[in-house]
Amino acid sequence: MDVPMNGKMHQVLLDREPQGSPVTDDFRLREAELPEPADGQVLCETLFLSLDPYMRSQIAGRHLSGTIAPGDVMRGETVSRVLQSKHSDVAVGTLVRCFGGWQTHSVHSASEVHPLPPEFPAPSLALSTLGMPGLTAWAGLHCLAQPRAGETVVIPAATGGVGAVAGQLAKAKGCRVIGIAGSDEKCRQATETLGYDLCLNRKSGDLDAALSEACPEGIDVFFDLVGGEILTLCSSKLAVGARVLLCGLMADYNSKERPAGPPPGFWIRSRATVYGLVVYDYEHRRDEFLGQAIDLYNQGKLKAWEDTSDGIDSAPDAFARLMRGENRGKAVVKVA
Amino acid sequence: MDVPMNGKMHQVLLDREPQGSPVTDDFRLREAELPEPADGQVLCETLFLSLDPYMRSQIAGRHLSGTIAPGDVMRGETVSRVLQSKHSDVAVGTLVRCFGGWQTHSVHSASEVHPLPPEFPAPSLALSTLGMPGLTAWAGLHCLAQPRAGETVVIPAATGGVGAVAGQLAKAKGCRVIGIAGSDEKCRQATETLGYDLCLNRKSGDLDAALSEACPEGIDVFFDLVGGEILTLCSSKLAVGARVLLCGLMADYNSKERPAGPPPGFWIRSRATVYGLVVYDYEHRRDEFLGQAIDLYNQGKLKAWEDTSDGIDSAPDAFARLMRGENRGKAVVKVA
Repeated sequence: MDVPMNGKMHQVLLDREPQGSPVTDDFRLREAELPEPADGQVLCETLFLSLDPYMRSQIAGRHLSGTIAPGDVMRGETVSRVLQSKHSDVAVGTLVRCFGGWQTHSVHSASEVHPLPPEFPAPSLALSTLGMPGLTAWAGLHCLAQPRAGETVVIPAATGGVGAVAGQLAKAKGCRVIGIAGSDEKCRQATETLGYDLCLNRKSGDLDAALSEACPEGIDVFFDLVGGEILTLCSSKLAVGARVLLCGLMADYNSKERPAGPPPGFWIRSRATVYGLVVYDYEHRRDEFLGQAIDLYNQGKLKAWEDTSDGIDSAPDAFARLMRGENRGKAVVKVA
Repeated sequence: MDVPMNGKMHQVLLDREPQGSPVTDDFRLREAELPEPADGQVLCETLFLSLDPYMRSQIAGRHLSGTIAPGDVMRGETVSRVLQSKHSDVAVGTLVRCFGGWQTHSVHSASEVHPLPPEFPAPSLALSTLGMPGLTAWAGLHCLAQPRAGETVVIPAATGGVGAVAGQLAKAKGCRVIGIAGSDEKCRQATETLGYDLCLNRKSGDLDAALSEACPEGIDVFFDLVGGEILTLCSSKLAVGARVLLCGLMADYNSKERPAGPPPGFWIRSRATVYGLVVYDYEHRRDEFLGQAIDLYNQGKLKAWEDTSDGIDSAPDAFARLMRGENRGKAVVKVA
C-alpha cells in the first residue's frame, strides 16, 4: 500500500497487431518510471484489472472508445487504491474504480476515479458481477428488453462476464433461461452454478435443432453477445414480439471485416424490436443497478463468477485465453 | 353495377414462377364462372386492385400472409362494390375494402368486407394514401419511430406507395426529409410534388458521399422499404439514438435467397432501436390513422399519389413495372 521505494512500475503494451486471435507474444511487459501526481491528481495502485472482449475491438480500431496501436499501454478498467492524493476530495487509501489500464500504477485526475460504495461486498466484484458486465446485463434486461415471467430468454456466451449476470437476472425475473456455450463443461456450470434452465453446447450436435426443441414457442428475448452465425440462427427462431439486444460481437472481434448481420426479414417476420446497447449510456443509472444487484447478491440470487489470474504479467495470456473462449467466468487479473 | 348477364368473370393467375423480376408472361388471364354467394356471403365487383411488392414475396414462398403457386389466382386488396348480398348487415351497392384478388369479381363472407367510411374522399385512396400503404407509413412513424421536429428522416423508395406517404407525414411533423429514388424524374417528383427537402438518385453518382453531405449530423430515422445495400449504407450513417424501421425488402423480393443484413456493429455504435414492422398488426388502429390522414388530406398536406392502369388484363404488366421500379406512385389497377 506504499509508493514503491524504487520509483518503478510495470506496464503491458501492445507490441504488434494480432493476426486473428491474440497470442501472448503480441504484448510486451515494460518497466517504467512511476509518474508523479500533479495538483488535483491522484496516484493509484492497481488491485484488480478487468479483461474484456471489447479490447480486441480497440486493437482492431473499431471500438467507439478509441484505438490501441502497437506501442500503446493496453487500456482497461481497474479497481485501484489511492496511494498519493493531491486533491482534497480523495483520501489516501480509498478504493476506487478507474481506467488504470494494464499496469501496476496509474495517475488520474480526481474526477476520473470513482470510490466504491462503503457496503461493497468485495473489491473485484466492481469489475464483474457488480461492475460493467453486470451493469450491461441489467441495462439490457431491466431498461430495454424487459422480459416478463414465463418468457424464454436465450443468452449466448452464457458463462461469460455479461452472460453470467444476464442469465441470473433473467432467472430472478421468472423467465425460462436458455444458455449457449462452447463446451460441455461451460454448459454444466451454466445450469449447476448460474441457474440456467438449459444450456446448449454450440460445438456439439445440431444447435439449430436443439434450439428449436428448447424454444418450441420461439425466443422472446435474445441477449446477443456474439454476433455472427448464432445471432442469425437465433434471429430465425424469434417469437412474435421478440426483443433482441445487440451488445457484443465476440464472433467478429478477431476479424478484420465487419461481417454482415442476419437477414432483416427475420426481424420483420417476428416484429422484433432490436436494441443497440452500449453500457456507457447507463453510467448515470449505476447506483440504481447497484442497489438492486447488491440486494440479489446478498440474497444469494446473484453469484460472483470470476476467472482470476495472478500478476500484471499474466494479463496477456489471460486475455488470449478469453479471446479463445477459454475463461471460466469474468476475466480479472489480480495485480496487487 | 349489375351481376354480369353471361355469368362469367375474369381472373389473373400465376402461370409459372418468375425468374428474378417478373414478366407479363409469368401470368395468365382466364375466364371463369361467376361464383354464387352462399348464405352469409356477398358477391363483389372489383373497382380497384392494389399491386404491391409483397406479392413477389408471396410468389417466392417467403411472405407471412401465405404462398402463391403456379395455377393460383393472384391475391390482393381491392376496393369493391357489393353486387349481391346474402347477409343482412351488408347492403347491395356498398363500397368495401376486401381481398378480392386479381379478378373482376369475388365472393366473401360478410365479415371479410370492410365498408369505406361515408366521408371517404375517393374509393381508390382506400388502397393508397388512405389505405394499407398509408397505414404502414403512419404505424412506422406515429407508433414506432416517433420522429421529432428538426430530426432527419431518410426514406428510400421515396415515391413508392409507402414512401410517398411517409415522406409527407414526416414533413407534416416538421422533420427534415431526405428521399432516395431510382431516377432523376422520381427525385424531382419527390421534392416538387411530395415535399421532400431533398431526394438523391441512387443510380447516379456517389450515393454514399451524397448521403453524408445531406445528413451531416447523421440519420435520426431510417424508414427502410428496400433492404439490401441501401439499408447497410444508411445503417452506417445513423445518428446516436436513431430508429430504423424494417418494413420492406424491395431489393430482395426478386431473389431466391434471404440476403444478409447490415453489420450489427452499425446499430450498436448508434444505439439504434430497430423495429420489424408488419402493417397487419395495426389494423385495430386504422380508424385513428384515417382520422389523422383524412384531416391532412383535406388540408392539402397529404396528396394522392397513384399510378393507375386500366383493366384487369393490365395487372401483369403493371406489376412487372412495379417490380422494376418503373411505377410513378402507388400502383393501382382500375378494374371496373
